[in-house]
Amino acid sequence: MFHKILIANRGEIALRVIRACREMGIRSVIAHSEADRNSLPVRLADERICIGPGPSGKSYLNIPNIISAAFISKAEAIHPGYGFLSENTSFAEICNDVNITFIGPSASVMAVMGDKVSAREAMAAAGLPTLPGTPVLHTLVEAQEAAREIGFPLMLKAVAGGGGRGIRLITSPEEFDRTFVLAQNEVREAFHDDGIYLERYVAKARHIEIQVLVDQYGHGVHLGERNCSCQRRNQKVLEESPSPLLPRELCEEIGMKAIRAVQQVGYRNAGTLEFLVDEQNRYYFMEMNTRLQVEHPVTELVTSLDLVKEQVRIASGLPLQLRQQDVQLRGHAIECRITAEDASAGFRPQTGVVEQYLPPGGPGVRVDSHLFAGYEVPPHYDSLLAKLVVWAENRNEAIARMQRALDEFVIEGVATTIPFHQRLLNHEGFISGDTYTRFIQEEAVSLGI
Amino acid sequence: MFHKILIANRGEIALRVIRACREMGIRSVIAHSEADRNSLPVRLADERICIGPGPSGKSYLNIPNIISAAFISKAEAIHPGYGFLSENTSFAEICNDVNITFIGPSASVMAVMGDKVSAREAMAAAGLPTLPGTPVLHTLVEAQEAAREIGFPLMLKAVAGGGGRGIRLITSPEEFDRTFVLAQNEVREAFHDDGIYLERYVAKARHIEIQVLVDQYGHGVHLGERNCSCQRRNQKVLEESPSPLLPRELCEEIGMKAIRAVQQVGYRNAGTLEFLVDEQNRYYFMEMNTRLQVEHPVTELVTSLDLVKEQVRIASGLPLQLRQQDVQLRGHAIECRITAEDASAGFRPQTGVVEQYLPPGGPGVRVDSHLFAGYEVPPHYDSLLAKLVVWAENRNEAIARMQRALDEFVIEGVATTIPFHQRLLNHEGFISGDTYTRFIQEEAVSLGI
Repeated sequence: MFHKILIANRGEIALRVIRACREMGIRSVIAHSEADRNSLPVRLADERICIGPGPSGKSYLNIPNIISAAFISKAEAIHPGYGFLSENTSFAEICNDVNITFIGPSASVMAVMGDKVSAREAMAAAGLPTLPGTPVLHTLVEAQEAAREIGFPLMLKAVAGGGGRGIRLITSPEEFDRTFVLAQNEVREAFHDDGIYLERYVAKARHIEIQVLVDQYGHGVHLGERNCSCQRRNQKVLEESPSPLLPRELCEEIGMKAIRAVQQVGYRNAGTLEFLVDEQNRYYFMEMNTRLQVEHPVTELVTSLDLVKEQVRIASGLPLQLRQQDVQLRGHAIECRITAEDASAGFRPQTGVVEQYLPPGGPGVRVDSHLFAGYEVPPHYDSLLAKLVVWAENRNEAIARMQRALDEFVIEGVATTIPFHQRLLNHEGFISGDTYTRFIQEEAVSLGI
Repeated sequence: MFHKILIANRGEIALRVIRACREMGIRSVIAHSEADRNSLPVRLADERICIGPGPSGKSYLNIPNIISAAFISKAEAIHPGYGFLSENTSFAEICNDVNITFIGPSASVMAVMGDKVSAREAMAAAGLPTLPGTPVLHTLVEAQEAAREIGFPLMLKAVAGGGGRGIRLITSPEEFDRTFVLAQNEVREAFHDDGIYLERYVAKARHIEIQVLVDQYGHGVHLGERNCSCQRRNQKVLEESPSPLLPRELCEEIGMKAIRAVQQVGYRNAGTLEFLVDEQNRYYFMEMNTRLQVEHPVTELVTSLDLVKEQVRIASGLPLQLRQQDVQLRGHAIECRITAEDASAGFRPQTGVVEQYLPPGGPGVRVDSHLFAGYEVPPHYDSLLAKLVVWAENRNEAIARMQRALDEFVIEGVATTIPFHQRLLNHEGFISGDTYTRFIQEEAVSLGI
């Protein structure tokens, strides 16, 4: 087992990894930006190294500084969290070259699965159904022709996209040209890659994703599904497990196919396969996230597993102790992503100082957050402040518990999405379980946004 | 089901009941003292009624005012929490007389089980082994004779005692007279009852207790055991479930005998039977607590049940949905009682203002606490500030998790027992699982107290 792990991330996920290390008897080193100097992960890690100024490009994406920090601190492994360098193939390669364990899959598998077009091809070859779609397109002319073949409405997606960026629904040929050019410009700037592909659009689609774990010896399990259909601009705002309304056998079938497919391509460590499920319960592989997901706690609560500890154990070469039949989803878990955004003002990101902070407690409530009274929300990073996660015996009880936990949650000084989540949890469409990826957009008025 | 419940308690347990009510769609009314006007339960309850000044005798023990508050607020039931009126037979009777549901057993069974001597007789008649002991004694002369019969060392206990008061270990005849008189004076003042009994002393005893639930129709289950052997002056400081080192079959046997015995005496609702287990694994019934225990969360974490909701459902007349075979203890749970006491100064109780408050979070951590930054710890009540409870797959992981949660816990402005618990969790005697009721006293030096 490792003696020391460097954490190349910040915020709640850095804290999450520090907590796992502490419980495993592993020393943690936080590589942090100047802006995060007074953050909770920096206070709670065993060691801290500043890797550059606030803007991510100069710190959390600064590969040479992170590698140097690992050398200086003698860390044997790096946990990348999510975002930042977590799906950066060259970073994983460099780690490998300098004999530091990257806690994640190999760079080569990451390269295949990180590119959405090649991932779709690989998973189709491994037996997963995919939506009719195009190869990578770079010019408007080839895109126009491909669009005619797929038909409208269709989805336009950036090969390198992420976090909801570079995704557009196009309903008619008239808007195609302009949207294509705009989207391409956006992703060229954000990801230095202007590759685009088109996909058939599924109306009223549910977003279902399968969590998998595979050890270095190819032994793997799936940990059931998460339903992440509550999205705003293709960004998840609430996730739950198991998925309401979908038949158990269907979820089990998707899970078994998913784990077999990733085993076939030699995937290792934790990963998530995202699927769309249409109204006829047909499912299509969309993409894979080759890292820990923000929403991993809902799976932890229904399986009683600790995914970060599993990641570390797998990366250190330990065999998985789980068999598929040991994995049972018990009860129901829901996560609300509390962000520093003002939902009443178009979800405008907020900065400022958290004046009061009192998380909810009591039975079945878990809070993953780096907040404290006096914390200054920096402008450089994504707006996630806290993940509020609840568990209960069934979905109705979990909803009631989430409602009371949201009511208790005190964050003052910065506008948050707590009021939005309170409305969402009280919305009859959500309570019925019948959510789909455009649910929040279509119900915007009744959700008060 | 009830529409409204009045909570005749304060602090974390009032909050615990409010949370359960909120999740069940029941309105909560908090009956509070003037000293608790700005407390978190008062802020979070649906309604609030002040029942008198700070000292308990004038508010939380003021039966007329509490009954009036229930009438004024139209509450159909009263949850007494623990302590205060929770085991007061006349209070339960009065509730019954005025058609308010007392959430607990009937007054008549409470009368039998609340008196330690009659409880012991009832449970012995129902098949539970008890320690050789005396009937109630009132004079020194009859006590001296009884003591000679039992032999030394022996335990002296007050019939009406509680919370560690009125309990003495007497090792020789020389100290008997003086200790008897002192103890009798103490309990006469505290409980208006000078009844004393003597019991054979068990060296190196483990304190094991069985949680039971019985519905109005006599259907009941036991929910496994809690080990509460970590005590200081007969007050529990840490509890866990399941019990380390004891054979599973033994615990299961005690559990089955306990549930059968309480069913036999017509006990209803939640209750706890306390046992001593000696070094030869012989067990003896000691007493029963006819109410919710402080340490109920450890049972909740290993059984995934919500004991307060079960109490409310049973009191409302709903049948228990559980069968004994549905109850499985899963993983391991530990609770630390964080009190406002300075362990380095003989556990002197502290008052003052909580300047900073940041509870630990992340996987497997539950905090039940009424604290917030700015809260003033009042002088009138017991010193419990927070219950820190963790769950993990096994005891070693639970210990590691508790250690990291204690390390994270920030309470500033008032001295707490967090540093003491940190030392206890790192003590090899505790880690080995070999704790007994005098463990903390005997290891005082190595525990830094």
